[in-house]
Amino acid sequence: MVHPTNKMTYGERAAKHPNACASRLLSLMERKKTNLSLALDVTTKKEMLDIADKVGPYLCLLKTHIDIVDDFDQDLIEQLLVLAKKHDFMIFEDRKFADIGNTVKHQYGNGIYRIASWSDITNAHGVPGEGIITGLKEVGLPLGRGLLLLAEMSSKGALTYGEYTTQTIEMARRNQDFVMGFITQRCINEHPDEDFIAMTPGVGLDVTGDGLGQQYRTPRQVIVENGCDLIIVGRGIYGKGRDVQAEGRRYQEAGWSAYEERISQ
Amino acid sequence: MVHPTNKMTYGERAAKHPNACASRLLSLMERKKTNLSLALDVTTKKEMLDIADKVGPYLCLLKTHIDIVDDFDQDLIEQLLVLAKKHDFMIFEDRKFADIGNTVKHQYGNGIYRIASWSDITNAHGVPGEGIITGLKEVGLPLGRGLLLLAEMSSKGALTYGEYTTQTIEMARRNQDFVMGFITQRCINEHPDEDFIAMTPGVGLDVTGDGLGQQYRTPRQVIVENGCDLIIVGRGIYGKGRDVQAEGRRYQEAGWSAYEERISQ
Repeated sequence: MVHPTNKMTYGERAAKHPNACASRLLSLMERKKTNLSLALDVTTKKEMLDIADKVGPYLCLLKTHIDIVDDFDQDLIEQLLVLAKKHDFMIFEDRKFADIGNTVKHQYGNGIYRIASWSDITNAHGVPGEGIITGLKEVGLPLGRGLLLLAEMSSKGALTYGEYTTQTIEMARRNQDFVMGFITQRCINEHPDEDFIAMTPGVGLDVTGDGLGQQYRTPRQVIVENGCDLIIVGRGIYGKGRDVQAEGRRYQEAGWSAYEERISQ
Repeated sequence: MVHPTNKMTYGERAAKHPNACASRLLSLMERKKTNLSLALDVTTKKEMLDIADKVGPYLCLLKTHIDIVDDFDQDLIEQLLVLAKKHDFMIFEDRKFADIGNTVKHQYGNGIYRIASWSDITNAHGVPGEGIITGLKEVGLPLGRGLLLLAEMSSKGALTYGEYTTQTIEMARRNQDFVMGFITQRCINEHPDEDFIAMTPGVGLDVTGDGLGQQYRTPRQVIVENGCDLIIVGRGIYGKGRDVQAEGRRYQEAGWSAYEERISQ
């Protein structure tokens, strides 16, 4: 059965969403007409800022791996925040926290990266138990941040299925003030009143795999057939030889038309 | 049934171990008479170096969370390596990698921290599937590094059980050139010819929990009853008001006498 959120516009969902960070993201998606998140996996500051500026107009969410940037400095963060304002997108540090509460609290708020101070959204695995959410929430909730849990991964042989996924979803349900959604391959919402945002990586229009276990599906499969809300695209946009602006626009259009098809069904 | 490795000395295991990093660690444990790993979770460089220097004489392995140190710089790494040489211990960056192969490769080798360049050992969750090992191995194996997988966590409500744990162990068995052992609550070895090193966090002599889901057991429970090889101790040694040198020695002695009890049984 299709969940009610799958028939609603992002704007309608934003208006009634109890999680502040989720509401902010859904509003942005509605006004900018994009459900595209760029997975910006590059190792230099220059590439990162250059690509973010070019693809910025088509994005609702910039997904970063800040810890792979060789020449990271505080100026990179400041410039990313300038671009986020200029192009109207939010930032999601894809940290995949996976430790006990007392440790992730520091990994999120302390250290060189101070992720909580600039990243609107981050994510975590449920594997250490619910303490991981408690720890992150202590730091992130007072700052208006949101958390995604990894309910399902698209990589080959991933252990995110069955009871693992069920337990992760239950943890999210018990923490809806902070957990705003999932990294997932399908819409997770079941109860009539819940509205978790479903973000889906492993999306590509032209490719099927990367040789290290990553597998790809199209925006239409993800948004229409599986009821997800955001498509996360990486090398499909800025891979070697690609015109990043043209590809950014192409994925934004593919994602948005899939969404329009879904809500009009 | 007790596995043969549980009756062998660390030195005997070192001599025949096929994994170079495991062999190096087991030799060190034998010559220094310690199975103690210090979980050094502090947020300043000064504390980190100060405690590592004081507890160094009792350690075989210094476990770090480099990404919680607010004033991290390259000099911290250099000074840690000096201490590792001075006191004869190895370093284990407890990164808990948990992403797809192509991402962890960069998280391990690139970025500000360049973990692979200084940390003898790191660890990963099996949750993304075997690609995570493939990715880390590409970077770490040529450098003689070793990987631990998280088979079991000690935190409350952890999802590391049943099929999750079984699948993680199978991934390790298929990658014994790089995977040297587990973070686990018990000895994992089953096949007669395998020798994974079992490292166990959540060890304390005086405490039972931290309020964020962490639970504690004694060195004897861990080494004798559950057949683990290393005890990982944190705040039990450098918690508020403790004499870190005295506590370091106390845990080293408790861990070593438990080991002697086990091999003499």
